[in-house]
Amino acid sequence: MSGFPVERVAVVGGGAVGTAVAWRAAAAGFRVSLIDPEPASGASHVAGGMLAPIAEAWPGEEDLLELGAASLHRWPQFADELAAAAGTPSGLRREGTLVVGVDSADREELDNLADHLSRLGREVTRLTGRQLRSAEPSLGPAVRRGLHVPGDLAVDNRVALDALQRAARSAGVEFVPRSAARVRPGAVELSGDPGEAGPAETVDCDAAVIAAGAHSAELHPALRDKIRPVKGEILRLRARSSALPPPGRTVRGPVHGRQVYLVPRDDGGLVVGATQYEKGFDTEVTVGGVRDLIADAEQLLPGIAEYELTEAAAGVRPGTPDNLPVIGFCEPGVLAATGHHRNGFLLTPITADAVVELLRGGAPAGIAAADPHRWGGHR
Amino acid sequence: MSGFPVERVAVVGGGAVGTAVAWRAAAAGFRVSLIDPEPASGASHVAGGMLAPIAEAWPGEEDLLELGAASLHRWPQFADELAAAAGTPSGLRREGTLVVGVDSADREELDNLADHLSRLGREVTRLTGRQLRSAEPSLGPAVRRGLHVPGDLAVDNRVALDALQRAARSAGVEFVPRSAARVRPGAVELSGDPGEAGPAETVDCDAAVIAAGAHSAELHPALRDKIRPVKGEILRLRARSSALPPPGRTVRGPVHGRQVYLVPRDDGGLVVGATQYEKGFDTEVTVGGVRDLIADAEQLLPGIAEYELTEAAAGVRPGTPDNLPVIGFCEPGVLAATGHHRNGFLLTPITADAVVELLRGGAPAGIAAADPHRWGGHR
Repeated sequence: MSGFPVERVAVVGGGAVGTAVAWRAAAAGFRVSLIDPEPASGASHVAGGMLAPIAEAWPGEEDLLELGAASLHRWPQFADELAAAAGTPSGLRREGTLVVGVDSADREELDNLADHLSRLGREVTRLTGRQLRSAEPSLGPAVRRGLHVPGDLAVDNRVALDALQRAARSAGVEFVPRSAARVRPGAVELSGDPGEAGPAETVDCDAAVIAAGAHSAELHPALRDKIRPVKGEILRLRARSSALPPPGRTVRGPVHGRQVYLVPRDDGGLVVGATQYEKGFDTEVTVGGVRDLIADAEQLLPGIAEYELTEAAAGVRPGTPDNLPVIGFCEPGVLAATGHHRNGFLLTPITADAVVELLRGGAPAGIAAADPHRWGGHR
Repeated sequence: MSGFPVERVAVVGGGAVGTAVAWRAAAAGFRVSLIDPEPASGASHVAGGMLAPIAEAWPGEEDLLELGAASLHRWPQFADELAAAAGTPSGLRREGTLVVGVDSADREELDNLADHLSRLGREVTRLTGRQLRSAEPSLGPAVRRGLHVPGDLAVDNRVALDALQRAARSAGVEFVPRSAARVRPGAVELSGDPGEAGPAETVDCDAAVIAAGAHSAELHPALRDKIRPVKGEILRLRARSSALPPPGRTVRGPVHGRQVYLVPRDDGGLVVGATQYEKGFDTEVTVGGVRDLIADAEQLLPGIAEYELTEAAAGVRPGTPDNLPVIGFCEPGVLAATGHHRNGFLLTPITADAVVELLRGGAPAGIAAADPHRWGGHR
């Protein structure tokens, strides 16, 4: 650090990562401000809440799988501590995941995934269509093959965000409902009120943490070319009384080569995600995106035709060149905890732990596999 | 009437019909109360605003065509008077309608419609796919045949509702933000506040007008078996800058036998409607309904894939056994102006005129073709 112990921490960004960092840092004894004009309103609010490093394992992204698996391993305890600190549920669902496929190319993709995971020592169970429908009767006849991945979980992102805010408040985090314009050592500069003249207001701090998702690139030069916006659209459904109830497990698939996931909620809800486009900061829901999500989801669960469509929304994920998050020092006194792309909730526990460790002047545990520069090279 | 002139009129229902009745009655000198807990929030708010009696002409429904054509004839002047009274636009669009078809059965349906209209002396122009695309370049290649119906118009329902409310207020209508429970000669009984005991409050009047859409059946025994709820779902889109602009004319079609309409708005918006189910008072938007509307609309205008989906909503139309509205006396002192089904906006001018005429003790003009019992048999 800068040669003196950190006392005051300013976190920029009230999504899952930023709020968890703020909570954990405050619980660890730091004095924490959380700066966000509208906490819990961005990509974390739109998200599906998949905690699925295994089902999403991809050859060449072994570092991401290891990081995701390490964070997933921490989720049950993180959820228990969150619920205890918040006094409300964490939103974690422990029912596991089915990865299913429809056509022969999808089945080949499933076989490749199963082979890849076997080589990495992660076992998954292959299931026939009949076995799948026996486990989840709402699966449609188009589903021919699948994998059971019991370890991949999900979290109700909005329940978790609410709990994170409560936990942060009760740990003493001060919420600052303002926009940040720039982060530098010693201070977060706030966006000026257009009606006011004079120098920019600041939140002074010993260490600042940039956890502003896709907007992080605007806040510090070191992040400028590392973080890019990746748009995603998502639907929220609710089983009507006339319809088959949602599955108990998360169901995801390649459907004719396109990825779709269906995450059940405790209240009869079902989240269907997600499209992926590189279109800048675009949060408009397109007709084509909704059409594709419905079409793919209906292939897996035909009964959703009778579900209520309660919401269609778009969010902007923070993408990075190698799909790994950026967690570490940008310069002394300025930390980044961003670039989580599609894995914000999954990587929340390990990210919060790593940031608290860095704030303490230590080296983060459990993320040794990643590039050391990424993990605090400026320290 | 009841032997004395009407002075005080209570209108139940703040949709298009009720608000127009209230405005026109107040402008004609009556003292008018408009009772609705949330005016302009029901089916009129959800509606597409088609003014299309000709494109929707159906053999066996010649009375409805005549009534609709008579009301459409009044729309331009009604719109001018509305805009003048409100001081804001009426929302009327005068660009006309194209009825198009995709497959051979659709084309046969278009030919039948053209023949039917010819026999009734209403000329329409038949167009090839090439002529249609020349008139509206956003029409897709699946569109093979069509009819030009220049007389069928459309209105931006929300602009019109806003203008109707302004016109009503400036004519002196008193808005009573309460629910009606029952209508009887001399009084509209309001729903009790659950927190309050005592006798029901009433709005006393010389004549009450029931214009509560699908809810009208609950308000008077004479309407109980005449009015039934018919659910409809509708989408609202908006052209993004990357997309082809919407057509200038309303475009409607049978698409593989299913009716769909696309109504452009002045601000780049496009309304896509509408499904039709008999499901009681159900205002939930279903996944299957949205899927069908998008699929049919994309057949006609493929460019909408790049449009923003700004809203999906469902409303409940007031259906009648013969698809004709119910306008007339239920008993002395109690009028009905309901049962407009899919034609609320279309029939608003003629309905308002008829009700004012009935309140004056006269016989409504322009609706002579209909059943006399329906048109004031209790008078």
